[in-house]
Amino acid sequence: MLKSKGKIHTKKLGQIPGSIIYTGEKESQKLFIEAFDYSKEHCIEKELLAAEESFEFKLSDSITWINLNGLNHVNEIEKLGNHYDLHPLVLEDIVNITQRPKIDEYENYLFVVLKMLYYDANNKIVSEQVSFILGKNYVLTFQESDGDVFDEVRNRIRHAKGRVRNMQADYLLYILIDAIVDHYFNIIEVLGEKIEDFETAIFSGNVHDSISKDIQDLKREILRVRRAIFPLREVINRIEKHEGTLILKKTKTFYRDIYDHLIQVSENIDIYREMIWSLMDMYMTTISNKMNEVMKVLTIMASIFIPLTFIAGIYGMNFDYIPELQYKYSYFILWGVMILLFIVMLFYFKRKKWL
Amino acid sequence: MLKSKGKIHTKKLGQIPGSIIYTGEKESQKLFIEAFDYSKEHCIEKELLAAEESFEFKLSDSITWINLNGLNHVNEIEKLGNHYDLHPLVLEDIVNITQRPKIDEYENYLFVVLKMLYYDANNKIVSEQVSFILGKNYVLTFQESDGDVFDEVRNRIRHAKGRVRNMQADYLLYILIDAIVDHYFNIIEVLGEKIEDFETAIFSGNVHDSISKDIQDLKREILRVRRAIFPLREVINRIEKHEGTLILKKTKTFYRDIYDHLIQVSENIDIYREMIWSLMDMYMTTISNKMNEVMKVLTIMASIFIPLTFIAGIYGMNFDYIPELQYKYSYFILWGVMILLFIVMLFYFKRKKWL
Amino acid sequence: MLKSKGKIHTKKLGQIPGSIIYTGEKESQKLFIEAFDYSKEHCIEKELLAAEESFEFKLSDSITWINLNGLNHVNEIEKLGNHYDLHPLVLEDIVNITQRPKIDEYENYLFVVLKMLYYDANNKIVSEQVSFILGKNYVLTFQESDGDVFDEVRNRIRHAKGRVRNMQADYLLYILIDAIVDHYFNIIEVLGEKIEDFETAIFSGNVHDSISKDIQDLKREILRVRRAIFPLREVINRIEKHEGTLILKKTKTFYRDIYDHLIQVSENIDIYREMIWSLMDMYMTTISNKMNEVMKVLTIMASIFIPLTFIAGIYGMNFDYIPELQYKYSYFILWGVMILLFIVMLFYFKRKKWL
Amino acid sequence: MLKSKGKIHTKKLGQIPGSIIYTGEKESQKLFIEAFDYSKEHCIEKELLAAEESFEFKLSDSITWINLNGLNHVNEIEKLGNHYDLHPLVLEDIVNITQRPKIDEYENYLFVVLKMLYYDANNKIVSEQVSFILGKNYVLTFQESDGDVFDEVRNRIRHAKGRVRNMQADYLLYILIDAIVDHYFNIIEVLGEKIEDFETAIFSGNVHDSISKDIQDLKREILRVRRAIFPLREVINRIEKHEGTLILKKTKTFYRDIYDHLIQVSENIDIYREMIWSLMDMYMTTISNKMNEVMKVLTIMASIFIPLTFIAGIYGMNFDYIPELQYKYSYFILWGVMILLFIVMLFYFKRKKWL
Amino acid sequence: MLKSKGKIHTKKLGQIPGSIIYTGEKESQKLFIEAFDYSKEHCIEKELLAAEESFEFKLSDSITWINLNGLNHVNEIEKLGNHYDLHPLVLEDIVNITQRPKIDEYENYLFVVLKMLYYDANNKIVSEQVSFILGKNYVLTFQESDGDVFDEVRNRIRHAKGRVRNMQADYLLYILIDAIVDHYFNIIEVLGEKIEDFETAIFSGNVHDSISKDIQDLKREILRVRRAIFPLREVINRIEKHEGTLILKKTKTFYRDIYDHLIQVSENIDIYREMIWSLMDMYMTTISNKMNEVMKVLTIMASIFIPLTFIAGIYGMNFDYIPELQYKYSYFILWGVMILLFIVMLFYFKRKKWL
Repeated sequence: MLKSKGKIHTKKLGQIPGSIIYTGEKESQKLFIEAFDYSKEHCIEKELLAAEESFEFKLSDSITWINLNGLNHVNEIEKLGNHYDLHPLVLEDIVNITQRPKIDEYENYLFVVLKMLYYDANNKIVSEQVSFILGKNYVLTFQESDGDVFDEVRNRIRHAKGRVRNMQADYLLYILIDAIVDHYFNIIEVLGEKIEDFETAIFSGNVHDSISKDIQDLKREILRVRRAIFPLREVINRIEKHEGTLILKKTKTFYRDIYDHLIQVSENIDIYREMIWSLMDMYMTTISNKMNEVMKVLTIMASIFIPLTFIAGIYGMNFDYIPELQYKYSYFILWGVMILLFIVMLFYFKRKKWL
Repeated sequence: MLKSKGKIHTKKLGQIPGSIIYTGEKESQKLFIEAFDYSKEHCIEKELLAAEESFEFKLSDSITWINLNGLNHVNEIEKLGNHYDLHPLVLEDIVNITQRPKIDEYENYLFVVLKMLYYDANNKIVSEQVSFILGKNYVLTFQESDGDVFDEVRNRIRHAKGRVRNMQADYLLYILIDAIVDHYFNIIEVLGEKIEDFETAIFSGNVHDSISKDIQDLKREILRVRRAIFPLREVINRIEKHEGTLILKKTKTFYRDIYDHLIQVSENIDIYREMIWSLMDMYMTTISNKMNEVMKVLTIMASIFIPLTFIAGIYGMNFDYIPELQYKYSYFILWGVMILLFIVMLFYFKRKKWL
Repeated sequence: MLKSKGKIHTKKLGQIPGSIIYTGEKESQKLFIEAFDYSKEHCIEKELLAAEESFEFKLSDSITWINLNGLNHVNEIEKLGNHYDLHPLVLEDIVNITQRPKIDEYENYLFVVLKMLYYDANNKIVSEQVSFILGKNYVLTFQESDGDVFDEVRNRIRHAKGRVRNMQADYLLYILIDAIVDHYFNIIEVLGEKIEDFETAIFSGNVHDSISKDIQDLKREILRVRRAIFPLREVINRIEKHEGTLILKKTKTFYRDIYDHLIQVSENIDIYREMIWSLMDMYMTTISNKMNEVMKVLTIMASIFIPLTFIAGIYGMNFDYIPELQYKYSYFILWGVMILLFIVMLFYFKRKKWL
Repeated sequence: MLKSKGKIHTKKLGQIPGSIIYTGEKESQKLFIEAFDYSKEHCIEKELLAAEESFEFKLSDSITWINLNGLNHVNEIEKLGNHYDLHPLVLEDIVNITQRPKIDEYENYLFVVLKMLYYDANNKIVSEQVSFILGKNYVLTFQESDGDVFDEVRNRIRHAKGRVRNMQADYLLYILIDAIVDHYFNIIEVLGEKIEDFETAIFSGNVHDSISKDIQDLKREILRVRRAIFPLREVINRIEKHEGTLILKKTKTFYRDIYDHLIQVSENIDIYREMIWSLMDMYMTTISNKMNEVMKVLTIMASIFIPLTFIAGIYGMNFDYIPELQYKYSYFILWGVMILLFIVMLFYFKRKKWL
Repeated sequence: MLKSKGKIHTKKLGQIPGSIIYTGEKESQKLFIEAFDYSKEHCIEKELLAAEESFEFKLSDSITWINLNGLNHVNEIEKLGNHYDLHPLVLEDIVNITQRPKIDEYENYLFVVLKMLYYDANNKIVSEQVSFILGKNYVLTFQESDGDVFDEVRNRIRHAKGRVRNMQADYLLYILIDAIVDHYFNIIEVLGEKIEDFETAIFSGNVHDSISKDIQDLKREILRVRRAIFPLREVINRIEKHEGTLILKKTKTFYRDIYDHLIQVSENIDIYREMIWSLMDMYMTTISNKMNEVMKVLTIMASIFIPLTFIAGIYGMNFDYIPELQYKYSYFILWGVMILLFIVMLFYFKRKKWL
């Protein structure tokens, strides 16, 4: 990811600012556009083949949600953008997937970028950029690829569940963002489990040498999640403080609710960061403890047998005159002495708590 | 707890915002509602069987305190909420026990959420969410389960101890929160004792290998307490700054007092955090010191006996012509040399302070 | 201290707010009240037996300083407090010795709490709470026990040294606080010396195994001093900014001077904190260096004698046919080879700088 | 660089403030001045031999960009500065290459200094100072040496690509700064790769002892990049907030875009900083793991053979009466015992997971 | 220094505030007073024998600079102070050399204290306090001892170099402070070199055991420099923001320039701080690497020769019946086996990269 970000940007180097160029890698993503047009009384759902098909919705007073998957289809995005009169820099940002979460307030619409996080099949965190345009009675969303967390939202619109059909576009934006933020809890839950797994592994001593690399990888993952989530707090805060007519006062309470959730997530992330730093300390003490144990075995073996070997060596000498050698019970006495020494040693190590 | 938080939230994933759903695990908690209605002159205490029974109190001018235990009984909570005209998001927050301490200021009431901390039977810190609604002449409290720190408050109301019966509802809220904050001192006292126990254990060398895990657990406990207490400072601060008529000027001095207590608690927590980081360092040096000791024993044993064994080995050789072998006193001279060497070694290690 | 703080507070748990209860441990402290009443022209000094005796001073226009030692005598304090019309919470705070340094501004007086620090006979830092009430023409001070740093102030009043007799009560408060702050320099001087002693000890290798605990204790001591001193900066700052008539403009320059001193002390404390963290690092490297030295001795001894012993072992074998054994000079040649090996080894270790 | 900075400044020590003295080391840089003068309809590009040749452009209403390479030619810079009426301190700052990125707002022009970063042939980061003067209809740029990142900008002006020919001088300044900031991504990409290389190397154990120095060097490189980039955020922010007429409102959106890029770069740098601190930890655990492995080999060898050698030593003793010696199968039994011991040991170490 | 600061202050303990007492140690410093009186047209330079001789300059409209060396001569300072109508606390601060850099704004003059840093003969950083009084048309400077960094300033005044003779007293103050700040670059240059020397030493392994103490000393030195320089930023900032008539608008640009320099110096100091923390890490890894190397030598020697010695021991046994002993080529075969074992071992260690 870090590397690829570099590559991504290189592509853009030297480009004229305002050029609409997709910076992601999913060049072959199929275009998918869907539109919802609803009011209290009706709800139309349509899959579109081209951006133009959505233009009719703009005229009506009802709320319109147009969702486009496939940022590589810059032409369609440009058509949609021109129809809704979006600033060229907005279009550039929509297809440049290296954005930080941010909000840009234009005269007639709000432009919000944030990151949708989920785990892929390999249990790696994937961060996908989602852009929102909130206009007077419409919301446009742009995603890089198919598959998202908005199914529940679609259901609510279709079946008039909850208050969405009675509210304005600002409420639609709210439930869309809320769906994404709810998934953040999922992410941090898994992060928390990973940290606990590491703790258990380190504590049980059941670790590969590669664990310090794994911890480093997890650290980096947390940093990335942090980077996706932390700026969003400011974004939501600015939506709540927004002074135009796009955000109604009664909806702001709901945005406040998202803000509270983000604070919760952020606090958890910071706690995880602190805990993961401790993991390395724990691991170091584990290594040291193991080395201690190895050293003790060595020291006990050496301390017991080296002196005994020395004694045996003494009586292996070939001096012509060693009085003990002739004495009949020497050998048995020596064995006695050695066994005594052995026992003394054992006691000594026992008392030192090495055994 | 960290894990369970994840699970808790998962339950809510995809829910319509504003749905009143209990997110805790105490599904079988029995409903308990009690009501106090008092003025300077009278005091009624009643246990209620259903929320409706409390409705009569709302009409009177006297101060009413309704306490409900059992957040799983969402129906009763909803009835109470509707009667007192609470916002749906407030009701949702009351039963969602993953809230951070916070205050929401509505037109006719204040909504305060905080965490009651106490040690359970296993000496683990339990964090239970308590919600407060402060209205013109009533206070509503919502707790997850039975058992709380409000007995002293009940006594004071019953027996007109202190000034509670002469004051307004804002003072009742104050003594309730004060009771909770006072218990925080209890929590940090035990935390401080645990840290001292670790210090003593590490210093005396009387440690299990699991101590680094235990320290990590304590660290996490402190982080959790911190998370429950730190945001409360802002909450109390905002009550003190509250500009409506719900908080009387003369009561604000009392809230200032709580604020001072919270600062004290917070400072202690931060000191503990710093001290617990040092514990790992202390432990590491202890391990290293022990390894040093082990190494010294090995080195002394080996350094003394390896040369002696070598000498014995020399005279164990079978060369036909080794002049020393024939000399009568060789053996005894050799013993002399060896003992001398031994003593020299001892002196050497003594001077190096290894003995 | 940390523990005792807990105990102290427990005593208060469940108390009615505003109850005046002494939370310290010096229950048997004798009551001592002294009063100074002075103006440019006169100075009366009196030791009082009861609070009532001081009441006459309140009427006069001259400056009155009443100092009370013995916070366990709550009745006297209450009498004094009622006479000077102090808020109940003020009286509660005076006798609750776990306060942080703080200032409370009331309509007719300022209430200042701070910590007097000094070393006791065991060279432990003692932190004693001193409370000040500054009124229109009086200063009240409350101390836990006898013995303080105000003797010089008493002398100046008695003998009209300096400008104290020409100034108002705000100047009296200033010189009292200044006397306390001046002693902080004493505290940090000793702390600095302790750190240097540790450094010298660690560097000279002249350390007990308990040094890591001693460092931890010092760390905690610094944290406690920090906690006593840091909030005081804000207190003095607020006195300087005070907008009432209690603090005259010309006196504020003097409070600014105290503030500068506190900043100096604070900076020193933060430097000490950073230095003490480094001490553990230094200690760790010292331990590692020592272990290195131990290892080198072992390695040198083993590397030299193990091969030599092997050679001796070879010629201790009992094979019927070992040609070298019969050769007359074998033994001497072998000695030559061994000595050569020995010298080569020595050179090798010399070049590796292990010797 | 750190050293050279010292040297650079020494040169200036004692100089009269406002003296225009080149502080870099490229004393022999050839002077190069180029000028672009363009409007929507025309574009003149000229290489100049002396500053005077550019004076004609100042009169026209068209946009003029004069770029000067070679800060050692202070005379030419002074002539240009006087012609465009620049403050002496501005000229001093242009040729003093130790500036931090900054913006100074003068009445008729903005003075912006920033750092152009690129990798030199040795893969070292080079930081070259570039100064910009933005006037009503001109931009002056000053660079230390030839070679820059502005070629794309030149092309756009020449061939009227993008909107540059339709915009004012403030847009020209924007695309120049944008070109520099785009290169920062290149820098951090390489930094990221270096960190990953270190990780891989440490993890694979394929490290030189010099790696801790290499990591330290990388750390320093990151600190330098940080120092070049972080202050620029404030500079761009102040351009965006600029209230004069030099920056048009419609251009500010573009500066906002640069600002967003800088935040992205800054965040990456801070992540790298954190990761590089972890690298040393990883390296330490790797070393410790290796030592553990070495210790295990030693312990296994010693623990197995020292007892066996002892047994052999026993039967090498020369006592006259050792009953086992005469027994015919003693030797074979002994071998059996030894092999058994050997196998037991292997099992023991296997169970301890040392093998 | 840390200790002496303590001692210094002790001297002051119990003093009446406002007493003018020299707190340094250079009690025997000779008094030296010099005066410059200049305008555009004239310049008088005079060495004075007593403060009174300078009084004449106050009357004239020309700019006067009076420099006094020798803070122990409090009488002269007091005379000067009274003549220029300085506040007693200012005089006290001038002779109390433990001040932090600060600015006090009085009605008719500014009082600035800062630290002049230079290396003494032992290459230790000396911090000398310099006080400045800036009045309407005069600057007073007070230094502890002879020798300063103002020679260039004197030259400029004498020979009318630069603009000093055309400017007011505020510009004189500027060039004096600028001279001091320019020397800070010198200080940090040397600090940078010291850090690099440590790095080189640690990396080359060419270190004494005392290096961790040396690093600690350097750390402390950096902390002291930091403490002298960091508060100065705020001082300069406040001069720049000064709203009285003492600082002319056109001079403020110059103070801004000093401010920029201070930011540069501060950033360097913070980078050094971070780098010096890393040094200890580097040192630790170096120690560990060395221990690893020692361990490897031991392990290789032991692993090779212990088994060989065992084999030799086997055939040194005195069993009556060991079949191999009689076989004629046993000895040679055994040598072959041993050499083979030896080579296998070497290969094994080679593959493990221990050789």
